[in-house]
Amino acid sequence: MSRYTAPLTDMRFALFDVLGAESIFTALNGGDGHTRDLLDAVLDEGARFNEQVLAPLNKTGDQEGCKFEAGKVTTPKGFKEAYQQFVDGGWAGLTAPADMGGQELPEAIGAVIKEMIDSANLSWGTYPLLSHGATESLKAIGTDWQKETFLKPIVEGRWTGTMCLTEPHCGSDLGLLKTKAEPAGDGTYRISGTKIFITAGEHDLTDNIVHLVLARLPDAPAGTRGISLFIVPKFKVNQAGQTGERNAAYCGSIEHKMGIKASATCVMNFDAAEGYLIGEPNKGLAGMFIMMNTARLAVGLQGLGLMERAYQNALAYAKDRLQMRALTGPKRPDKPADPLIVHPDIRRMLLTQKAFIEAGRVLTYRACLQVDIAHRSQNEQERKNADDLLGFLTPIVKAMMTELAVECCYHAQQVFGGHGYIQEWGMEQLARDARITTIYEGTTGIQALDLIGRKIMQLQGAGLRLFAAEIGEFCASATGDAAAFAATLGALTQEWVGLTQSIGAKAAKNPDELGAAATDYLFYSGYISMAYALAQSVAKSQVRGGDFHTSKLATTRFYFDRILPRVAQHKAAVQSGADNLMQLDEALFG
Amino acid sequence: MSRYTAPLTDMRFALFDVLGAESIFTALNGGDGHTRDLLDAVLDEGARFNEQVLAPLNKTGDQEGCKFEAGKVTTPKGFKEAYQQFVDGGWAGLTAPADMGGQELPEAIGAVIKEMIDSANLSWGTYPLLSHGATESLKAIGTDWQKETFLKPIVEGRWTGTMCLTEPHCGSDLGLLKTKAEPAGDGTYRISGTKIFITAGEHDLTDNIVHLVLARLPDAPAGTRGISLFIVPKFKVNQAGQTGERNAAYCGSIEHKMGIKASATCVMNFDAAEGYLIGEPNKGLAGMFIMMNTARLAVGLQGLGLMERAYQNALAYAKDRLQMRALTGPKRPDKPADPLIVHPDIRRMLLTQKAFIEAGRVLTYRACLQVDIAHRSQNEQERKNADDLLGFLTPIVKAMMTELAVECCYHAQQVFGGHGYIQEWGMEQLARDARITTIYEGTTGIQALDLIGRKIMQLQGAGLRLFAAEIGEFCASATGDAAAFAATLGALTQEWVGLTQSIGAKAAKNPDELGAAATDYLFYSGYISMAYALAQSVAKSQVRGGDFHTSKLATTRFYFDRILPRVAQHKAAVQSGADNLMQLDEALFG
Repeated sequence: MSRYTAPLTDMRFALFDVLGAESIFTALNGGDGHTRDLLDAVLDEGARFNEQVLAPLNKTGDQEGCKFEAGKVTTPKGFKEAYQQFVDGGWAGLTAPADMGGQELPEAIGAVIKEMIDSANLSWGTYPLLSHGATESLKAIGTDWQKETFLKPIVEGRWTGTMCLTEPHCGSDLGLLKTKAEPAGDGTYRISGTKIFITAGEHDLTDNIVHLVLARLPDAPAGTRGISLFIVPKFKVNQAGQTGERNAAYCGSIEHKMGIKASATCVMNFDAAEGYLIGEPNKGLAGMFIMMNTARLAVGLQGLGLMERAYQNALAYAKDRLQMRALTGPKRPDKPADPLIVHPDIRRMLLTQKAFIEAGRVLTYRACLQVDIAHRSQNEQERKNADDLLGFLTPIVKAMMTELAVECCYHAQQVFGGHGYIQEWGMEQLARDARITTIYEGTTGIQALDLIGRKIMQLQGAGLRLFAAEIGEFCASATGDAAAFAATLGALTQEWVGLTQSIGAKAAKNPDELGAAATDYLFYSGYISMAYALAQSVAKSQVRGGDFHTSKLATTRFYFDRILPRVAQHKAAVQSGADNLMQLDEALFG
Repeated sequence: MSRYTAPLTDMRFALFDVLGAESIFTALNGGDGHTRDLLDAVLDEGARFNEQVLAPLNKTGDQEGCKFEAGKVTTPKGFKEAYQQFVDGGWAGLTAPADMGGQELPEAIGAVIKEMIDSANLSWGTYPLLSHGATESLKAIGTDWQKETFLKPIVEGRWTGTMCLTEPHCGSDLGLLKTKAEPAGDGTYRISGTKIFITAGEHDLTDNIVHLVLARLPDAPAGTRGISLFIVPKFKVNQAGQTGERNAAYCGSIEHKMGIKASATCVMNFDAAEGYLIGEPNKGLAGMFIMMNTARLAVGLQGLGLMERAYQNALAYAKDRLQMRALTGPKRPDKPADPLIVHPDIRRMLLTQKAFIEAGRVLTYRACLQVDIAHRSQNEQERKNADDLLGFLTPIVKAMMTELAVECCYHAQQVFGGHGYIQEWGMEQLARDARITTIYEGTTGIQALDLIGRKIMQLQGAGLRLFAAEIGEFCASATGDAAAFAATLGALTQEWVGLTQSIGAKAAKNPDELGAAATDYLFYSGYISMAYALAQSVAKSQVRGGDFHTSKLATTRFYFDRILPRVAQHKAAVQSGADNLMQLDEALFG
């Protein structure tokens, strides 16, 4: 079985040393923030829960999977008990509003705990994951009654949430959705339609489930402007807030998937199910996107969590497994062979993982920190900047962390050799679980279009400008070991801005240029953003010095030497334009 | 379920048009070759068998898997019957010597049939796969009696073969192996030890199984120079060639794997099992490597076959699935949305697959053609050149086709979105099956060391020199559309030779430089080799003209614009040297 120990040292380094979260939290709370002692205790407690309760259920959960019988989903052994411990420990409402019963800790702290959950047990983590998104939507656009009635039980962990978007004929293209909502005349609606790929749509962890469902009102305009959002509980809730009879929102079946087998992926049939409109009619997508953006960051954290667990196990195996002698002569002459870690190519795979994780952790926590600032800063400009940065970073974090998680799990399996392909060691499960992350909550291609189309072109690159300016300032003032990376980083960042403008110019003449550049542009942006995260880390670790700095410096040097050059291919692809993609008639593809 | 149609047009184009196989076959047979009509009929028949018999068993085989009970392995429903049809159709002895009952068709023709098998049903294909390797070893180093006794039944399809190398404590490092062979005094040996990861080590397709087992004779030198090769049949065979009682070669269990679930991966326990020495004492590795090299090309073909099936299905889905409008405005205004294939990013993923397949097919068949020339040419220099080229191309083909198969299946899943992650559509099975190919028969890292360490450094780059000279000649004489690619390709090939020399120079001072460069050097070499394969294809397709040429040209342009730039990162990594990998103390990895 694979092991997991929460990497508290690096988590704290990323959040507090590199990102200065403590002073940010204090400022957001008007000088009266949660103390570092308290936050450290929360992280310690989170580590214990995840290492001891969730991690051991990861393999058995995969092997058992969810069972579906007579409309009911049974989660694997131990899942329900673990959920109860999660609730009892106060984790369900960790970042939720105090007036709803939550602890109102910063989202960035919630992110660290989420990373642990995703390392420990990705499948299990999908049940509370969507509750968090539902919380955000309800908080933002729910009425007081809706908050009291639906949000509170979620915060208390008594109910969970879902997001019901996808239908059989529409995934990325929500404009096509057909689910209908008819007003019942009493303020409620009757929702009818079929939703697929609904994570945690049905399960046995809680008494009730709150579905947030996209549907069309009668006479709604076609396309995305005619979509409204509805609250549809599994068990009906009346105006007095009392839970009553079973609603006509039934799970029709669960999917048989490549991985996350302990996460119930449901087909949900709504058959004139009773629901409540949330937010304004026909503006449901906006409400759903509050949830979706939260979910996208959460999926980025899933990628990070998977990378961490894959790396820990690959590293341990590389230190333990004896195979061949070092090319420079025996390193363990007392043993029949040297450990794998003496071999340069094994180190290349380990360092790739290490660099992805350490850069990714700074970048991902950074994005989550913007949520706190955007929600809670007293300063309007600060809130706007945080929001712009958050919007800009979200598709990068979601896509990069998940794509690199796939790569990381790949490397981990390679380090294990044949043992990486069998169930015994757990690496193949991580690889299967990771494979969903580049797909759900918007594929990498959708993230790429969101970045270049919406966050760059529509919003005139506000987020990129802020980020590039910040990198410029960092490079200008970098000292010591960090200065060694500043020259490369600074030049690349200028190139980034230039490349962005060149795409805009081409897209003005041919919109296909946007789509043709999108994914490569995202990777290009991602690798530079991660280079910045590592350079920042070196700037902070050099203050600390010692082994910690030595390790951070070597990781950063590796990244700049061997990973960052990947930008060249992505730049070349972007610059090559759309013709090489669009010219071939579809009949001639094969 | 996923579909498969053998791509006969492109297969024939690669083999006959690009590689000129017909005239090579004729020359090898002294002017009296198998006629093109015959070969075409074989390919047509192979397509029928694979599409109709093997392809439909792929999904059910994955779902059922192999069963292990009381020492016996039961293959999934239909596997045994399909194997009988395979034998009845004459496929088992397709390329085997005529005097052993084979049809002695060229290995390159066998390769095309193998590609089909691997597309149709990778798991099923692993049973005959190792018979082919065993055939090669027995042919090369078996005594007449051994050939008559063990090779003939394999050629006839009555028995299958295995290769037993790996032990629990040694995978890549065979020098550590412990299995013992004691002379029994009657010319036979008693083999004792445990082998793991033995593909087709036990099954129900044939009456007997011929294990080729690496073991140590008493007093054999330590390390790889003390390893001998033994024939150990499942049922004993006496000196008169009669099959007798059960030998003490038992399957102890089968592995539970990520994929190729219908392929029995066995733990084999040899308990003083009766065996025969094959080849010279202590030179067993050489005999095994005859088999291993065959198997490596075969695994390269597995990668190719998987890519083809993934692409066919992704393409069909992309043409069929309606999702969003083209960025340039509706392309199917009559429908609620445009098909996926209008979107640039979907085309990027499809063209990536198409380019990998078409380049890979030429490169892989090319390597297989060298087997025919190396074995059968009348001209000694021609045989030597073919052997040098084969040795050089084998690690490139094995590693690139399998690594790109992993990538290809990744893209195919992305094109399917959420549907790519569920079992229904078959894409996730292809991805799981593909994942073993970069591991077995030598991981990518092992291939990379074989290329730079053995094929380049030890053999003084004979294969590279031949290949680079040939590319140089091609570029110098390229005309028409092919000339457009020759400039880039020619310059890169010169750079390739220079980069190779620079590694040699650095490695002379520090052997770790070889290991530090190996994998990136392999990818670098692979992408250039595939660029050459595509440029050659254009040179030949322009003769044919029409849609076929249009498609080949667009694919090649895409590859040169968007894939070939990947060489830059690999070159940078190679040039960055070993320090960035070796400097970090293993204690500081985490």
